[in-house]
Amino acid sequence: MLKKMIIAVLIYSFTFIAPHNTEVAFGEGNRKNVIFMVMDGTNSDVVTLARHYKGKPLALDQILTGGVHTYSLRSAITDSAAAATAMATGHKTTVDFIGMVPVNDKEGERRGRPVANVLEAAKENGLATGIIATAPVQHATPAAFSAHSNSRHQMKEIGFQQAHQNIDVMLGGGKKYSFTPSSISTKKGMMNSYGLQLRGFFSEEDMAYDFDRKKLHPEQPALAEMTKKALQTLNQNPNGFLLFIEGSKVDFAGHKNDPVGMVSEVLAFDDAVKEALQFAKTDQNTLLIAVTDHGNSGLTMGNRQTDKTYPQTPSEQFTEPLKKASLTVTGALSQLKKNRSNIQEVLKSYGLDDLSEKQIQKIKKEKDIEKAMVQLMADRAHLGFTTRGHSGEDVFLYSYGGKGVLHKPQGLINNTDLPEYVIKHLNLTPLSELTNKKFVPAQEHFVKMGYKTKINLNKNKQASFIAEKNGKTIEYPTNQNIRIVNGQKETLPGIVIYNGKDFWIPLP
Amino acid sequence: MLKKMIIAVLIYSFTFIAPHNTEVAFGEGNRKNVIFMVMDGTNSDVVTLARHYKGKPLALDQILTGGVHTYSLRSAITDSAAAATAMATGHKTTVDFIGMVPVNDKEGERRGRPVANVLEAAKENGLATGIIATAPVQHATPAAFSAHSNSRHQMKEIGFQQAHQNIDVMLGGGKKYSFTPSSISTKKGMMNSYGLQLRGFFSEEDMAYDFDRKKLHPEQPALAEMTKKALQTLNQNPNGFLLFIEGSKVDFAGHKNDPVGMVSEVLAFDDAVKEALQFAKTDQNTLLIAVTDHGNSGLTMGNRQTDKTYPQTPSEQFTEPLKKASLTVTGALSQLKKNRSNIQEVLKSYGLDDLSEKQIQKIKKEKDIEKAMVQLMADRAHLGFTTRGHSGEDVFLYSYGGKGVLHKPQGLINNTDLPEYVIKHLNLTPLSELTNKKFVPAQEHFVKMGYKTKINLNKNKQASFIAEKNGKTIEYPTNQNIRIVNGQKETLPGIVIYNGKDFWIPLP
Repeated sequence: MLKKMIIAVLIYSFTFIAPHNTEVAFGEGNRKNVIFMVMDGTNSDVVTLARHYKGKPLALDQILTGGVHTYSLRSAITDSAAAATAMATGHKTTVDFIGMVPVNDKEGERRGRPVANVLEAAKENGLATGIIATAPVQHATPAAFSAHSNSRHQMKEIGFQQAHQNIDVMLGGGKKYSFTPSSISTKKGMMNSYGLQLRGFFSEEDMAYDFDRKKLHPEQPALAEMTKKALQTLNQNPNGFLLFIEGSKVDFAGHKNDPVGMVSEVLAFDDAVKEALQFAKTDQNTLLIAVTDHGNSGLTMGNRQTDKTYPQTPSEQFTEPLKKASLTVTGALSQLKKNRSNIQEVLKSYGLDDLSEKQIQKIKKEKDIEKAMVQLMADRAHLGFTTRGHSGEDVFLYSYGGKGVLHKPQGLINNTDLPEYVIKHLNLTPLSELTNKKFVPAQEHFVKMGYKTKINLNKNKQASFIAEKNGKTIEYPTNQNIRIVNGQKETLPGIVIYNGKDFWIPLP
Repeated sequence: MLKKMIIAVLIYSFTFIAPHNTEVAFGEGNRKNVIFMVMDGTNSDVVTLARHYKGKPLALDQILTGGVHTYSLRSAITDSAAAATAMATGHKTTVDFIGMVPVNDKEGERRGRPVANVLEAAKENGLATGIIATAPVQHATPAAFSAHSNSRHQMKEIGFQQAHQNIDVMLGGGKKYSFTPSSISTKKGMMNSYGLQLRGFFSEEDMAYDFDRKKLHPEQPALAEMTKKALQTLNQNPNGFLLFIEGSKVDFAGHKNDPVGMVSEVLAFDDAVKEALQFAKTDQNTLLIAVTDHGNSGLTMGNRQTDKTYPQTPSEQFTEPLKKASLTVTGALSQLKKNRSNIQEVLKSYGLDDLSEKQIQKIKKEKDIEKAMVQLMADRAHLGFTTRGHSGEDVFLYSYGGKGVLHKPQGLINNTDLPEYVIKHLNLTPLSELTNKKFVPAQEHFVKMGYKTKINLNKNKQASFIAEKNGKTIEYPTNQNIRIVNGQKETLPGIVIYNGKDFWIPLP
């Protein structure tokens, strides 16, 4: 324990020196950081069940400070895109929109206009930034902290934008959709990396469930490991940093109603919270926010079987069936042979080790084996589920700030209130001001100055906005941070957004 | 608005004068109060749904401060008796126990030993006390704040004990089990009452659901009205007060899976919170705690129908079907004739006004009409339920304290942590000390002094503990605050408890 503490002190004392030296140059006191963590799709019941499973308190338990409304602009139940847009930009929006809000026209529900997010504000003010997710980093939640699109499903578009946002640290899944050169691709590579920037995509799509990782994908890092490395990397920046971290796959497991996946992903997220909290406690100038974006699946400890017996159900009745599993339902089924000959082994790896031959043969013939397996598990663990979608309840809010943090979110707030705390703590440009500066309606802007404007589609169907006047041609290709003036490429201080009808461009 | 404020100031300025005059006599600064409110069996989803139903923020929303673990001694899911014992005494206990913890013997799970509660501590220290519930006041939750029994089902025993606890204000249901003389029996009587004490039992069993009250039981007061009157009454006491308030019937409706009852009871509870909060804000020395004891029913906004459509479900899709109801399912069915000839009218009063003749005839023939009705409502309102029992998740904690409140509960705590905040704020005798003083093992106590002891059952099977020495006979009848010394009745500073095997007696 003491040894660990000494090592921790050594690590942080190194990183402490930098800001103290640069402090004078910036003349603004200690540099400040924000770590913004989201466990996607988690209700209170799942966190409670995870604590029973672990048998001791969670890191999250130390920092519960309130609750959060999660509803979106047009729905009492949000999707992850609208929820993340709310948390990143301060705007309620509609389903599927990434960093966009409906425009004021008839098509407003299908086409949005971009609004600035906290990551863009951090960049604008010279801070380092990072994005971590166990889903593809182009997935809805990390996407809304780093891109702008009418649809979360435009993952290549989102990946293309991310490649032009100058994000210092990007770690997670989504190699398939990424246009950012990867500096590493394995846990080992990550551990041995150094420098001010770090980009690694460890899987084509989402990373493995943490519970399956050690057995099936030992080359992938854990969320806590990515978190720790990202903090070490970003903390070298003399101006402070904003790090966004998503434990993406509680939600994935929730949609499947797989309690093994849900519980183990909460625990993996909590391990990352532990890292972040340790950093924030040592640093004292770091605001840590952790929250879920919405409930999922309606899991409860207690179901129809416990209608009468609930007051006599020790926690083991809920956790022991889960503890028999050594893989999530997804991990287990990834090992199933095409002819299903190893079904018994697969069932066993999901903790279903005591089925009769008859039961096994029945499951073997099931069209949807996954569904049959999770239902068996839910029955055994006395767990109820109401849906395979999200749910609409207020969720718990977690936050921590040391001496240097004057305001942390607490009490019952709206998800749209969260970015204000980030902006305030880091003393960044207000998001409304940044939106006006970084997302200027292109046509209006150039027409006012006497330009003729048009929109071109290139051979890859990538759109460009073109403004012409007196032989001067300015071209703004979409989803990039460049413009081409009479054939000369210029870098822009932001990205160009096209919603299928209109263009928005950054002003210097 | 201004007029309202002036009236409020006038009301409270009256009550302010008293403490300021007595302050000097007590020499302890301003007198302090605690209002401890429980909405029984409510999860986060129900509160969120109630807010959507109301269409504006709840009083509770202003004072969310954390979360609470609810599990009991032997179960991950608690019953109300164990939960209330935890909140009133600081001890985890087993199902059905009221203010008792298991004794250390083989029968420990069936027989308890009494432990002191916060109401007894308040009495001991000269404060006024009150108990309000919409269930019978002898029901599990209010019982654990005022009595000690092996079983919550011993409601007459609990009522008998309450009659000997000198509780200043008792308002609610449970006339049938009460031995406390009632000074009032209607809302009107309550409104016109005065004096330092107030006891009213408005129904034999539980009071009507608030939603049914106005139509079917207009003679009964609302929880908010009882709260306001109780505060006015107790606030006359110069030493401060402890008031316990239960909105009992969210839980009743939860067990029935009736969302109309659940939502309307949350709103009725919230109206009472509004009264309590207004008092606490004006007073500034009152600690207000509001909490639910556990989840119930696993209600979620979102169910199997919304597996795919959840991100496009405006709140009206959840609330409009509920708003068509003018009675809870219990209220509606109370109007059903024996021959069920008025079924259509009954269904309509529950908001099921557009059923086909065929559907109506089908429901008419149902064995369990109530179940059929709530299932129809859940389907229409896109609500999921997992159980007809309780659930095990951490629940939201609400608390408020003005300038005079140094410590209020916040963050993630255990339900057993709550009484400490009460004791600390009111500066009361620690509960462990009070337990040692008020619940002394009778046999051990008298044998040590050379007495012979025995237990007698009288003709009503009420047990007495008897100690004899040198012709002196001391008799302690159970569940009362008296002893009989050689035929002479003496009042005791607490109640005598018998667990079926052993006696506990109060020392002066």
